[in-house]
Amino acid sequence: SRYPSPRPCPRLVQKAELVRLSQTLLHVKGLHWIVVEDAPARTPLVSTLLAQSGLSFTHLHVETPPELQRQESDPTWLRPRGVEQRNRALQWLREHSQPSDPGVVYFADDDNTYSLRLFEEVRAGPSGGRCWGRPLVEGGRVVGFRAGWRPTRPFALDMAGFAVALPLLLATPRARFDPRAERGFLESSLLSALVSLDQLEPKANNCTKVLVRHTRTEKPKMKQEELLGPEPDIEV
Amino acid sequence: SRYPSPRPCPRLVQKAELVRLSQTLLHVKGLHWIVVEDAPARTPLVSTLLAQSGLSFTHLHVETPPELQRQESDPTWLRPRGVEQRNRALQWLREHSQPSDPGVVYFADDDNTYSLRLFEEVRAGPSGGRCWGRPLVEGGRVVGFRAGWRPTRPFALDMAGFAVALPLLLATPRARFDPRAERGFLESSLLSALVSLDQLEPKANNCTKVLVRHTRTEKPKMKQEELLGPEPDIEV
Ligand SMILES: O=c1ccn([C@@H]2O[C@H](COP(=O)(O)OP(=O)(O)O)[C@@H](O)[C@H]2O)c(=O)[nH]1
Ligand SMILES: O=c1ccn([C@@H]2O[C@H](COP(=O)(O)OP(=O)(O)O)[C@@H](O)[C@H]2O)c(=O)[nH]1
Ligand SMILES: [Mn+2]
Ligand SMILES: [Mn+2]
Repeated sequence: SRYPSPRPCPRLVQKAELVRLSQTLLHVKGLHWIVVEDAPARTPLVSTLLAQSGLSFTHLHVETPPELQRQESDPTWLRPRGVEQRNRALQWLREHSQPSDPGVVYFADDDNTYSLRLFEEVRAGPSGGRCWGRPLVEGGRVVGFRAGWRPTRPFALDMAGFAVALPLLLATPRARFDPRAERGFLESSLLSALVSLDQLEPKANNCTKVLVRHTRTEKPKMKQEELLGPEPDIEV
Repeated sequence: SRYPSPRPCPRLVQKAELVRLSQTLLHVKGLHWIVVEDAPARTPLVSTLLAQSGLSFTHLHVETPPELQRQESDPTWLRPRGVEQRNRALQWLREHSQPSDPGVVYFADDDNTYSLRLFEEVRAGPSGGRCWGRPLVEGGRVVGFRAGWRPTRPFALDMAGFAVALPLLLATPRARFDPRAERGFLESSLLSALVSLDQLEPKANNCTKVLVRHTRTEKPKMKQEELLGPEPDIEV
């Protein structure tokens, strides 16, 4: 392969995910995509993909420090992933925006499945924090969360279940994701600094529509490719 | 859930896959999507999704007969999936086309990742069979295949690695997928009836670009949802 990497399998899936996600985002008007690679430098694989995507984008990188990396053998819940990367994006937004810039910030994992209707919901209105997924709504206000696990967390929401108005983020410079947050409290670590529960604005018809799906792509079994070895001129 | 099903987990993934795929196809001009459900009847889940997709589509169904179904405990290579469904689509095309209708037929799994450039390649030109993936090309002709497993199969191509001109399909009514084909010979069972190796037209720069990725979506761990049970008014 032209872009050697110590981890060929994750990289294959990563490219597929970015292709798929970029093609979804290509439908969304007025979108700017901030892609933060978890790597010591930006890779040509991602640079090329972004350059060909037709999207407005910013390409950044920050490597997760070794002590915060989750190992292959660790259970998936041991550490959240992509925390430093989300914080790097927040930093970039703060450096490159004026306090009054409009906009809404949404934290998109690369492997989730996003309905186009999600972006209409995120875009609409000038609010502070907003959420969907499955908060419990009464009288147009969020009063709690339906979650199988610790529903009493301050914000029992997945990363994909909320968006934040850019001016609110800019007005609260200390708000960031805490990489050492307890399991399930990563979202709360940002949101607690920004809003209280009753300030959340429920979207998606009072949080009754599923517009994001927490999908994960299977790791390919690489037996055949390992047998054959890489080909010099094919970008996989 | 409003659409009860004996297999809730696969259905969740199926909807995510169809959302994602439909949004990719929405970029493709002149496309008609034939969706064949493996079910005793068309389901409201898929009907609704198609109706909201903005795509031109035909919604069919055919259930895989029990003796050809792969069981959860079977290894994935034991039986190919989606064979009767592809044959149902071929039948529909033959019933609803005139012999001279232009068009190109491509067999798209719902879980693969398709680059938009794929559809430009598939569309271009008025040819018979065409292929990409990784056939070996010499002097503009396919002379064999690079495959880790039985490269000497008549057509050592994945389902996602070729397309066929509609007139050719119409001119060869007996050509179909053989559900009892030996492992890895499903693609060959159709293509052998249609073309010889040297009639294949290599695409994607002599088959050096990867435009489809054979991704699979992880089965979600349903622990949390099982704990909570379904909600009456939320379509998942
Ligand atoms: O080593 C890694 C693995 C993942 N991620 C990112 O962190 C986010 C969450 O990771 P993942 O999807 O694996 O977690 P899950 O959704 O399964 O909890 C995704 O956007 C990944 O791209 C990352 O930055 N570094
Ligand atoms: O019970 C099933 C399982 C799968 N499929 C379809 O058959 C194709 C191939 O299935 P799968 O992706 O599971 O196979 P793989 O690509 O992993 O070999 C896909 O389009 C599926 O939608 C089907 O019709 N019935
Ligand atoms: Mn994820
Ligand atoms: Mn598949």
